[in-house]
Amino acid sequence: MPEIKALLFDVFGTVVDWRTSVKEHILARSPESIKTSVDWDQFTQEWRDGYFKFVSDNSKDDATSVFNSFLSVDQQYRQALDVLVEKHGIRGVWTEEQKDDIATAWHYLKGWDDTVEGLTLLKSKFIIGTLSNGNMRLLVDMAKYAELPWDVVFSSELFKIYKPSPRVYLGATEYLQLKPENVLMVAAHMYDLEAAKKNGLYTAYVVRRGEDIGRTASPEEVDYFVSDFVELYKQLTAE
Amino acid sequence: MPEIKALLFDVFGTVVDWRTSVKEHILARSPESIKTSVDWDQFTQEWRDGYFKFVSDNSKDDATSVFNSFLSVDQQYRQALDVLVEKHGIRGVWTEEQKDDIATAWHYLKGWDDTVEGLTLLKSKFIIGTLSNGNMRLLVDMAKYAELPWDVVFSSELFKIYKPSPRVYLGATEYLQLKPENVLMVAAHMYDLEAAKKNGLYTAYVVRRGEDIGRTASPEEVDYFVSDFVELYKQLTAE
Repeated sequence: MPEIKALLFDVFGTVVDWRTSVKEHILARSPESIKTSVDWDQFTQEWRDGYFKFVSDNSKDDATSVFNSFLSVDQQYRQALDVLVEKHGIRGVWTEEQKDDIATAWHYLKGWDDTVEGLTLLKSKFIIGTLSNGNMRLLVDMAKYAELPWDVVFSSELFKIYKPSPRVYLGATEYLQLKPENVLMVAAHMYDLEAAKKNGLYTAYVVRRGEDIGRTASPEEVDYFVSDFVELYKQLTAE
Repeated sequence: MPEIKALLFDVFGTVVDWRTSVKEHILARSPESIKTSVDWDQFTQEWRDGYFKFVSDNSKDDATSVFNSFLSVDQQYRQALDVLVEKHGIRGVWTEEQKDDIATAWHYLKGWDDTVEGLTLLKSKFIIGTLSNGNMRLLVDMAKYAELPWDVVFSSELFKIYKPSPRVYLGATEYLQLKPENVLMVAAHMYDLEAAKKNGLYTAYVVRRGEDIGRTASPEEVDYFVSDFVELYKQLTAE
């Protein structure tokens, strides 16, 4: 096996637990009146589902409209919030400014229990970086908030198209002056790893609670199949 | 004064002492025969001078040729090394592979004495990032080697044009979702700060040994004028 020199991480769900953090962020900014009248698990899941549809729609290589007028993930989450407010019948509860603030929930997500320890271990042996559809500022805020020790932050925003476009995987690999086979993509979602593999990168699947619903990943589909980042470090350094 | 939220740092000379590190890197990879027969201070300075001319030639906004065929700083340093080898009459001393290795000298530069302490302090209050003409991989390697705790790495390579092009300063500012007046450019070279100021950023001049030869900067020309990064932290947080 060629030498792996850099690890690129999907972020939402893989590195941070968006489900818990986003719900807490909303509730901390909401009046008592709506705290129990809305199904916040459902609300949060729908917010996330809308994001998935958005990036899927904007990851095709012929999506030149995206390239010319790139909508950031921040902007998408903010617009989607208005739709959710209508759908859940809570119009007027928040001001426009409060909604702007609530939409920043995605900047302040906590890592999973193993995240900081695992990344710190991995950083001692490899270049570690994000490869996320989240925009640059979002990823920088998140790294400060959750104390993620990245060597480098790569966002789809740099390439003006979203994962799973090949341009994202190969663009980051080129900036690192590495061949795809020197790079390991780490994610809790098979669609991301399938795209990485197609572009020649190695793949590591991390099992994360609530991610990849309806998709049963198996160890045969990837190069590494782990329960957390500490386990990934152990497997990578045992070779 | 508007609130400063992010600090962007020039790197060569401002954050790291290229002069000492590059010379040591070369000597560690050279046979005894040339260690004293070449003026290495002069050699290193000429290598640096060639880089300055290169980025100056490739920072004009109408330099579309650059945009279409961007030569990285790594590539430039490597090509320039061949020229220096001829000039200093040491052809044949190093193999092509050894020259490739020697050209990576610019990835492994040590910080000034205050660098890590100062950046760590500044990181506790602000977003801190590079804004360097060095390419991405070079900056990532340097950060690991010199333990520079960046929140984000911005390189001219992301914008396919070099500082002092406005596209570099404003591009990084946009990725941070900040207005120019929320960003402070930190450098040991007035040409860099003059360009930053012209684009609306705040400016901090750091006095560094051997930098800005032939240019006497004065405190009136910039917003902050400091001896090192710890002093910069004190001035920024005293307000």
